Amino acid sequence: MSQVQNRQIVLNARPVGAPKPEDFRIEKHEVPELPAGHVLLRTIYLSLDPYMRGRMSDAPSYAPPLGLGEVMMGGTVSRVEASRHPSFNAGDLVSGFTGWQAYALSDGSDLSLLDSRINQPSLALSVLGMPGFTAYHGLLNIGQPKAGETVVVASASGAVGSVVGQIAKLKGARAMGIAGGADKCRYVVETLGFDACIDHRAPDFAQQLAAACPNGIDVYFENVGGAVFETVLPLLNIGARVPVCGLIAYYNDTQLPQGPNLVPHLLTQILIRRIRVEGFIILDHFATGFESFLRDMSGWVAQGKVTLREEFVDGLEQAPQALIGLLAGKNFGKVVVRVSEP
Amino acid sequence: MSQVQNRQIVLNARPVGAPKPEDFRIEKHEVPELPAGHVLLRTIYLSLDPYMRGRMSDAPSYAPPLGLGEVMMGGTVSRVEASRHPSFNAGDLVSGFTGWQAYALSDGSDLSLLDSRINQPSLALSVLGMPGFTAYHGLLNIGQPKAGETVVVASASGAVGSVVGQIAKLKGARAMGIAGGADKCRYVVETLGFDACIDHRAPDFAQQLAAACPNGIDVYFENVGGAVFETVLPLLNIGARVPVCGLIAYYNDTQLPQGPNLVPHLLTQILIRRIRVEGFIILDHFATGFESFLRDMSGWVAQGKVTLREEFVDGLEQAPQALIGLLAGKNFGKVVVRVSEP
Repeated sequence: MSQVQNRQIVLNARPVGAPKPEDFRIEKHEVPELPAGHVLLRTIYLSLDPYMRGRMSDAPSYAPPLGLGEVMMGGTVSRVEASRHPSFNAGDLVSGFTGWQAYALSDGSDLSLLDSRINQPSLALSVLGMPGFTAYHGLLNIGQPKAGETVVVASASGAVGSVVGQIAKLKGARAMGIAGGADKCRYVVETLGFDACIDHRAPDFAQQLAAACPNGIDVYFENVGGAVFETVLPLLNIGARVPVCGLIAYYNDTQLPQGPNLVPHLLTQILIRRIRVEGFIILDHFATGFESFLRDMSGWVAQGKVTLREEFVDGLEQAPQALIGLLAGKNFGKVVVRVSEP
Repeated sequence: MSQVQNRQIVLNARPVGAPKPEDFRIEKHEVPELPAGHVLLRTIYLSLDPYMRGRMSDAPSYAPPLGLGEVMMGGTVSRVEASRHPSFNAGDLVSGFTGWQAYALSDGSDLSLLDSRINQPSLALSVLGMPGFTAYHGLLNIGQPKAGETVVVASASGAVGSVVGQIAKLKGARAMGIAGGADKCRYVVETLGFDACIDHRAPDFAQQLAAACPNGIDVYFENVGGAVFETVLPLLNIGARVPVCGLIAYYNDTQLPQGPNLVPHLLTQILIRRIRVEGFIILDHFATGFESFLRDMSGWVAQGKVTLREEFVDGLEQAPQALIGLLAGKNFGKVVVRVSEP
């Protein structure tokens, strides 16, 4: 096995503002000899997700930052090429967190055999994996939508937002999406089955959103922040719930926006409308919640009740540009890098 | 009864910033003849509370604003002077919401006979009434402190804060107070039994608070906002809970503070530290929670486990100045106006 040539994309520089191609660097190394108790993995699919931007910075966050020169982190689906581990056999498909590289060695501790309920392996990175679980946990355990209530989610054509709205519909709520551009909005309504979807780029976005939510908003699933949050805030009902799983609008910011300071306004609205705002990091909940999520979601996917658009990018070398585009809202659906043939 | 001379304090002008004495006006009227089905009440105690400032403004809030010329609202303990109502007899003590006036007529719908568990009638306006219930509900149902956790509350010598810290101690948590001045801080520790209390006027307040919370903060009971909130925020632990019952720091504000806009920072902290911020208005919870609160709290008060300092102000005419002082943090304990002899 020592002849296997690996390609890795590493963090070359910490981005200032939006990441640039130069913030990444490709390296080529021979894969070391396979140690006892390990497997050699060939990456098939690499997931790209907004949280990656945060890990490229050294600002304090919920996880330590990636070191300069380290391989970019990321969820993957891989084929076991060779195994010296009792739980894995050559040919197995596994999901893991082996990052932006063509091959990886693993001691198996962070790997799972691909669940037999997952027929389409790339879905382990989206609707049946971390983004789907984020939508499921945040919406059902924090948002707790009741039948007839209005649920709003931004990035509604993205990996998390798509699933939020579809689960909201399954629970009898009204699902209202926000997305960038007419094509995405049409897809969100026609394919995903949301009740409506508003283009946040429209000059009258605020008026359109208010008109589309005549009974106000009961659950706002927060994954963007920024101008969308400010537009949603005045529409929140008494007792509204705001699960916060991401704030992509801020990830590339290098400084705080100009004043006035709206924190007093926000806290006042939270008080007088009895709003609950609650942050969560989905990694905290895998041990307790993933199994029941996967059971429910596999069923819904099999029955065609939840679907998701995947946007495939071919080749590991395309990953930096694809992440840059994702952070700018240029993707349409879940972004998956096809690193090698299944 | 038609000879009874009433005194009422009415809203004379909507305050701009801090209320001034001229924003109030005293009026004298004869009390009308007692109609059938009504009682005539003589006010003994009038409660002064921070929420009154909000009701003097016409900014949108959880309750309609008081009209100009209307009697200032407020919780009261009164003696039934005459009754044409089957449920009340002359001589009964009742709690109600009859406002800033010496006498009131009531059809009984907003009155309760003073609960037999309340030996000291003025306590029906504080520890055994709305402020005590605010502390109890917010801390136990939203804050949910666990033994060993750290609970922080500002206005720790005030009607709500006093009770928050004492309940926290009863639940095995560390209680950390914030108050204005050495006298209040000493009282909070020595009499109320908090573990520590920090003077927010100290130039090194932030350092003192951090040093007093070596394990961070698990529950911050928010009743002030402003600089205290900003000082607490970096100390909040992963999974912290922030019940929001009041924001006295902002009540007199006429404009938002200058920038930068810290909302992105606040939302980011909520996300990466999985914080839950939840507003509540205690009026929502009387029907479902007051009875069990009163049972618990009467027991704690009888056993000397919860106590509260009352600051009595003599005479209805002193109420405006006392409210102005309360909003400026000049009170020391629960402010009660003695309107007439028991």
